[in-house]
Amino acid sequence: MSTAQEAAAGDEDESWAEVTPDAARRLLIAAVEAFAERGYHATTTRDIAGRAGMSPAALYIHYKTKEELLHRISRIGHEKALDILRTAARGAGTASERLADAVASFVRWHAGRRTTARVVQYELDSLGPDARAEIVALRRQCDAEVRGIIEEGVAAGEFEVLDVHGTTLAVLSLCIDVARWFSTRGPWTPAEVGTLYADLVLRMVGAGKPGR
Amino acid sequence: MSTAQEAAAGDEDESWAEVTPDAARRLLIAAVEAFAERGYHATTTRDIAGRAGMSPAALYIHYKTKEELLHRISRIGHEKALDILRTAARGAGTASERLADAVASFVRWHAGRRTTARVVQYELDSLGPDARAEIVALRRQCDAEVRGIIEEGVAAGEFEVLDVHGTTLAVLSLCIDVARWFSTRGPWTPAEVGTLYADLVLRMVGAGKPGR
Repeated sequence: MSTAQEAAAGDEDESWAEVTPDAARRLLIAAVEAFAERGYHATTTRDIAGRAGMSPAALYIHYKTKEELLHRISRIGHEKALDILRTAARGAGTASERLADAVASFVRWHAGRRTTARVVQYELDSLGPDARAEIVALRRQCDAEVRGIIEEGVAAGEFEVLDVHGTTLAVLSLCIDVARWFSTRGPWTPAEVGTLYADLVLRMVGAGKPGR
Repeated sequence: MSTAQEAAAGDEDESWAEVTPDAARRLLIAAVEAFAERGYHATTTRDIAGRAGMSPAALYIHYKTKEELLHRISRIGHEKALDILRTAARGAGTASERLADAVASFVRWHAGRRTTARVVQYELDSLGPDARAEIVALRRQCDAEVRGIIEEGVAAGEFEVLDVHGTTLAVLSLCIDVARWFSTRGPWTPAEVGTLYADLVLRMVGAGKPGR
């Protein structure tokens, strides 16, 4: 297992460990669940406090607004996504190996953390302009990491790609959409989807010998 | 342009032409917009009637509940998706040609009708059990049409696929997620994304000579 894959796997156990104190973390987890179930606009801070077993007044100690919760969730989610892609992109190995590692790890994360990923992806328009600009900048950095691997593969003669920009977008889109359809009641584990998708993506970039 | 592509293109002009009378269609269009902006749970029938320039009482003549609106939107959307895929799958040509046609048409539809597609995809869990079962059955038929083309391509020696079920799911997922990221302010038209994606999907199934 590569470093990037360990990072993606570890995240499933240590959910939101970066959020302290404990009360702030419990509120954040409650917010993710409420936003996923009812949508951002149908959720009140009172709902979130109630789910966390706290009073609305206790919530305001940690978060001034509902938007601050969404912003925090989105920032942590995007920073984790960027960390996974950057670790894979800057690891050792050929472009094929690094792209396969990036896709497998990114897919594992979107399957394992699908509730968070859905909130982060589908509620992007609910962020205010400043928060949104910050998140869009993180997304551009995610794109750049994947595009970098593809460009290196093309330069090395490993990949044959018609449209690097479009192919980068398609690769990220394929991985992100795992959060929409993945279910633990389905036939695959997150790791199995990661392996299948790494092979499909190597085919998309025309890698000479897909890693099987 | 193939028959399936014409069907996908035509749909962008004749939105919801199947919904009559005119008042029922206006309410349905208002519901799609409201659900997309605020989410299903944050939208009231009063909001929907207001957007359509009608009274709540006038809404109840056409739709008994908010869920009936979502169900109708979802059914029409899924029936259209199935029609596009079935037309491509059962057309003339090799498996490669039919798969490219299915992907290009399906992508055009998801790019052009992205607001409807987002509501249909993201609010699936908001449907009641009976409505949901009906929609899940339509989704299975969509899967079966794409899987059928891939199986025929494998049988004919045109495609080389490791996992037909997983690859079918990935192809549909890639197309569906276009509704999440596509923007008319982006660099591509729906038709250009369709052409790019048809090439990427032919690569995913290991088609001997991608259609370029």
